[in-house]
Amino acid sequence: MPVETKTERGPRNGVDTPKLFATLDAVKNQPELAKFQFRAKNRWIKGTNSRSRIEGFAGAGGEHAHKGEYVYEADHPAVLVGEDKAPTPVEFLLHAIAACLTAGIANIAAARGVTLTEVTSTVEGDINLLGILGLSDTVRNGYERIRVSFDIRGDAPAEKLKQIVEQSRSRSAVYDVLAHGVPVDVAVNAG
Amino acid sequence: MPVETKTERGPRNGVDTPKLFATLDAVKNQPELAKFQFRAKNRWIKGTNSRSRIEGFAGAGGEHAHKGEYVYEADHPAVLVGEDKAPTPVEFLLHAIAACLTAGIANIAAARGVTLTEVTSTVEGDINLLGILGLSDTVRNGYERIRVSFDIRGDAPAEKLKQIVEQSRSRSAVYDVLAHGVPVDVAVNAG
Repeated sequence: MPVETKTERGPRNGVDTPKLFATLDAVKNQPELAKFQFRAKNRWIKGTNSRSRIEGFAGAGGEHAHKGEYVYEADHPAVLVGEDKAPTPVEFLLHAIAACLTAGIANIAAARGVTLTEVTSTVEGDINLLGILGLSDTVRNGYERIRVSFDIRGDAPAEKLKQIVEQSRSRSAVYDVLAHGVPVDVAVNAG
Repeated sequence: MPVETKTERGPRNGVDTPKLFATLDAVKNQPELAKFQFRAKNRWIKGTNSRSRIEGFAGAGGEHAHKGEYVYEADHPAVLVGEDKAPTPVEFLLHAIAACLTAGIANIAAARGVTLTEVTSTVEGDINLLGILGLSDTVRNGYERIRVSFDIRGDAPAEKLKQIVEQSRSRSAVYDVLAHGVPVDVAVNAG
């Protein structure tokens, strides 16, 4: 979030920049508004197929419902003995990081007075399944590396566009989680 | 993956257990089959809204196309100056971990001869937005903690059901990535 540059405050890139800065000011004055909790509820369907609902979240001092009904499945592909009813869970991590960095890019560009014309990205994740298959003690279970590659166009020099991407990376929630990890608790109620 | 228990090999829980063990044997004999690459392509729409396509992946010695057309959007909610056209990127991380652990639970239960009747989970992620808003030098950008809570029912004692969840956690690709992090490269082509 570009607190350092506030010279261009008009809406841009579909970002309501005045509202963005007003929100920033509100949180500065009342930091407890910044505490959020996001949630998902998942139900097993059959085999490796399950379905999550993403309904509401807490934040800005209250509870919020999403506008739409957001339901997502996941599955394993046939080559991994699933039925490919949906992408694999690990592919949703790739969607998450592309979308997080891209949202940041649009916000930061708007705040810096840059009009974007195109932002596309490709994300690749390399994984060696010897880990999750229990066939190696040295191969990890998860991705060994993730690569995000952006193409970005707008009314600014290439160097400025690159700085916008870098600022987005340096303030991305998903980048932070994927690059640095987070404590994850798993509790079980079995009956 | 329960290489330790192969006594119950019939299909169960919608899992083709014989095929699962055959796949495991095939990879044991030809470990290079275990190398996979998953991919997503994202395009910015407007504001904080973008759309990812998850089309194909490499693995088991070849290229594979998903059976369906898998397209997912993401956005920020109104309270974060978005239009809430889709969940936030960080909420997809919660879907990913619930789905990954659940797929593992179904596979492991099938391999251990346990028939499941219900697996549901709730995932919560706590995040303090002072980080991504650039209003604190000490608050991280990403989730501070993720909690996954399972309810699991099946034809086995509670202790055995809990062990199945624990084995899934210990071999989950998404758990590993979220709990331990992964190197993430971000490249930019700006024009």
